[in-house]
Amino acid sequence: MTDQAEDLDHLVRGSWTPSGAADAGLPAHAAKWLRARTGLAERSTPAAPDSALHVPESTLSPDARALLSNVVGDAGVHIGRSERLGRAGGLSYLDLLRHRGNGDIAVPDAVVVPADHDEVQRVVEVCSEHRIGIVPFGGGTSVVGGVTALRGKLDAVVALDLHRLDELVSIDPVSRIAVLQAGLTAPHAERLLAAHGFTLGHVPQSFERATIGGFAATRSSGQASAGYGRFEDMVAGVRLAAPRGEWRLGVAPASAAGPDLRHLVIGSEGTLGVITEVALRVRPLPEVDRYEGYVLDGWDKGAEVVRTLAQQRVPVTVMRLSDSTETEVALALKGGWKTVALRRYLAARGIAEPCLLVLGWEAGSTGELSQRRAATLRALRSTGAVRLGKAAGEAWRHGRFAGPRQRDALMDAGVCVETLETAAYWSTLSELRTTVRGALADSLTGPGVRPIVACHISHSYETGASLYFTVIVPRDLDDPTGQWQRAKAAACQAIGSLGTITHHHAVGTDHAPYLAAEIGHLGVDVLASLKRTLDPNGVLNPGKLIS
Amino acid sequence: MTDQAEDLDHLVRGSWTPSGAADAGLPAHAAKWLRARTGLAERSTPAAPDSALHVPESTLSPDARALLSNVVGDAGVHIGRSERLGRAGGLSYLDLLRHRGNGDIAVPDAVVVPADHDEVQRVVEVCSEHRIGIVPFGGGTSVVGGVTALRGKLDAVVALDLHRLDELVSIDPVSRIAVLQAGLTAPHAERLLAAHGFTLGHVPQSFERATIGGFAATRSSGQASAGYGRFEDMVAGVRLAAPRGEWRLGVAPASAAGPDLRHLVIGSEGTLGVITEVALRVRPLPEVDRYEGYVLDGWDKGAEVVRTLAQQRVPVTVMRLSDSTETEVALALKGGWKTVALRRYLAARGIAEPCLLVLGWEAGSTGELSQRRAATLRALRSTGAVRLGKAAGEAWRHGRFAGPRQRDALMDAGVCVETLETAAYWSTLSELRTTVRGALADSLTGPGVRPIVACHISHSYETGASLYFTVIVPRDLDDPTGQWQRAKAAACQAIGSLGTITHHHAVGTDHAPYLAAEIGHLGVDVLASLKRTLDPNGVLNPGKLIS
Repeated sequence: MTDQAEDLDHLVRGSWTPSGAADAGLPAHAAKWLRARTGLAERSTPAAPDSALHVPESTLSPDARALLSNVVGDAGVHIGRSERLGRAGGLSYLDLLRHRGNGDIAVPDAVVVPADHDEVQRVVEVCSEHRIGIVPFGGGTSVVGGVTALRGKLDAVVALDLHRLDELVSIDPVSRIAVLQAGLTAPHAERLLAAHGFTLGHVPQSFERATIGGFAATRSSGQASAGYGRFEDMVAGVRLAAPRGEWRLGVAPASAAGPDLRHLVIGSEGTLGVITEVALRVRPLPEVDRYEGYVLDGWDKGAEVVRTLAQQRVPVTVMRLSDSTETEVALALKGGWKTVALRRYLAARGIAEPCLLVLGWEAGSTGELSQRRAATLRALRSTGAVRLGKAAGEAWRHGRFAGPRQRDALMDAGVCVETLETAAYWSTLSELRTTVRGALADSLTGPGVRPIVACHISHSYETGASLYFTVIVPRDLDDPTGQWQRAKAAACQAIGSLGTITHHHAVGTDHAPYLAAEIGHLGVDVLASLKRTLDPNGVLNPGKLIS
Repeated sequence: MTDQAEDLDHLVRGSWTPSGAADAGLPAHAAKWLRARTGLAERSTPAAPDSALHVPESTLSPDARALLSNVVGDAGVHIGRSERLGRAGGLSYLDLLRHRGNGDIAVPDAVVVPADHDEVQRVVEVCSEHRIGIVPFGGGTSVVGGVTALRGKLDAVVALDLHRLDELVSIDPVSRIAVLQAGLTAPHAERLLAAHGFTLGHVPQSFERATIGGFAATRSSGQASAGYGRFEDMVAGVRLAAPRGEWRLGVAPASAAGPDLRHLVIGSEGTLGVITEVALRVRPLPEVDRYEGYVLDGWDKGAEVVRTLAQQRVPVTVMRLSDSTETEVALALKGGWKTVALRRYLAARGIAEPCLLVLGWEAGSTGELSQRRAATLRALRSTGAVRLGKAAGEAWRHGRFAGPRQRDALMDAGVCVETLETAAYWSTLSELRTTVRGALADSLTGPGVRPIVACHISHSYETGASLYFTVIVPRDLDDPTGQWQRAKAAACQAIGSLGTITHHHAVGTDHAPYLAAEIGHLGVDVLASLKRTLDPNGVLNPGKLIS
């Protein structure tokens, strides 16, 4: 490793630190670069106003509405246009397109807002008895169609908005377990835990809006998974409201009492019951943290270094490697003359194809942080990593949740922008990346249209890692939906048996056609039998998980 | 921590190092101490010869035998008395009593020995079609009735002996994953892996005999779980032969593709299918290791220290705390004048109630080991721990697998000796220990009979720990089975909702009556529906897991 002094900050800060303006619209330099790089035409395609969207009438019968009002009160059942439209689908590119007028929006027939577990339980029972579909709705951040208000074979479907389940039920500081209600957003949960000196440390990109129940239901994984684990690693227990009754699991830190049934509830995506509470392992709030950027030369070298660090189990909190395309895009979209200087600086140190590696450490004291960082840097020695310093790391951290917002600006500018992700064992990872990149590029390339397909590793394990792809390409204004559907299908087929169809976005509707190939026909039968057992009338989140 | 020099070795080695003779029979000093401590009478109750045991005739029909021979060959189907008796049950105290003539032995009607996955698959299909029970049999080390040859409602039951599935199928050194066949014993698996420079690091007390398939089927946890994790943490993938076909799971290090169905197979105890291969995360063979003993004053202090170390995630490989009773027993059974000297030494350092803490570290280099040990000792500072040095640690390691063999000597001397285990969150752990100890002591105490109930923590987590109880009491020669059954029932009822009915011994027959209380009636329904889906004729390991 070429250990460089902090004076690199002056080169880096200008490049990676997002400007405040980035959230508001696409900066001129970024638009210019995108046009040159991708063939994007100069155009403006703003979102349609909500009033222009077609919202079908609610099909919820007055009788059904009265039954639901009996449980949650009249004020807890909403059939207004804006309330229903506000819980219509998630935040995938196709969802955003629909809200821009491309394609039909599946709008729930009502929004039901229970106050607590008991109300959820009774709503679930009423809906099961009267065959009303239920879509559990937390932050609405699904990017795979997980909260789309599909009816299946039912006459009506309601969105079960869990935002009133927003309490810290209990905290056990000795065992370091907190019981959190499902509707708590991550920031709210963190505030409640911080009052007791604890944190979950679960920070996915959806952090600002996503909820505890959603994390559990989708087997979420946050950007700090290297330090805090995946969300499933934090789950000690779950409380589920299923049509056939309440189900509580989790009496000990580990058990050999048969199959671990918590793992059926985690990742069940609302199809087996509504998660109302999650008991979670918490950790003391870190007192200090430090984020740094390093640069490695090329993807293969970068991935090898990440593998080495993961297999040596270095005590990092965040470890994230961008390929050279993603590194290039990050530099270009932020822009400025300093990019050129940085490139020259790296080239002088033998870096032909810069791949940014962000490392972060959180600790209880500066001494502990120093030890963790030192252990990491020992493992980084002789890898050829060039240190950029803290500015690059802090810049990443500062902008870590900005992606979803920046997407709106890109879409306004006529861009198709979406992400997808997978994971594989280390020995397959490069092939998987090459194959998926090729499939996306082949699908999206056209006359004068040059897609950007960027990739990063944000979650690594001893045995493998995730791959997260970002696609940026001029939108096909004639068939924007088909353009992305074809690319997504090509990518999913490319994943094939090389990796999992989803590492942390879940299955929803979008990955359902590919699930059987991953878990086998017996796996599908097993899920179906679980569904019949827990949700015999099939009212829970119709059309998700199993297609 | 009072950091003592290695010169303590001369005090400790004599006390903890087991003598070579310990395996052969009960040493005179140990017998003497046991008589004084427990009220044991001087008597000899040797095991009955196998020839004295009643073995019913095989009920396997000639047709069924021919069908099985078609699959595995005539040489693969055994109906001889000794072969059948050799696969009749496991190694619980009740199993050993049965083999000593107390109670009926459930003997399988045949022993079927398949050569590979395909033969297992066909045997399973034949047995399902013809309604013949199958008990998957690996090392036969179950202590909960997990391999008892129960027929259920079927006419016959065969033991499916998996010892010929003993290959390392493949190894991926880049991803650090090895695919191992289910019948490999742990030592054999370790030898095969060592040839490639790797280890599993899974060392339960049953290490010498237990198999890879059994570890997965029972959700095993080894003595080095602090460093290597539970067996389930190592499982990347599984291959299952079920009546409805083959089922493979595990394509990536982590996934959000629905519920993690691997966790249904892990811990399924042979009731859903026969595990034939397991893909496991492996680690480089350690180059160096170090084991040390420390002493803490009293259980509460000891448990608090273990909790602190676990929650600080110190990089130990083994962490094991004995309560003062277990520490006393270990000292007394090893005997010798040095025990007295050690007690005096500890008393002089303020230790009134010595609780032994064994810490072990394994590492790739002496430098790494030093760092790990230093990090651990930093956390141990100001806990009042008195260091005993390496001899105490090495003595524990040397005798770590001896327990099951020593049991025979104790039983020959007329002792009832058995273990049971549970786990709970930290805030409940002391109450759980007190309650279970009380229940065992109350049940087993009688006129002149004073049971020893010892306890240790051998697996700790951020949120809690396991409790492992060892009971030593004069055997009730009139009703030895009832004596232990009553004590076990009292302990299981005492565990109640305070902890799990089993942390790593699994459910088998013995814990089946208590499973519903832990996983709820919906949990039982879920397991039943899984069973119907994967094993529709109910031939797999009848009577286990669900009672």
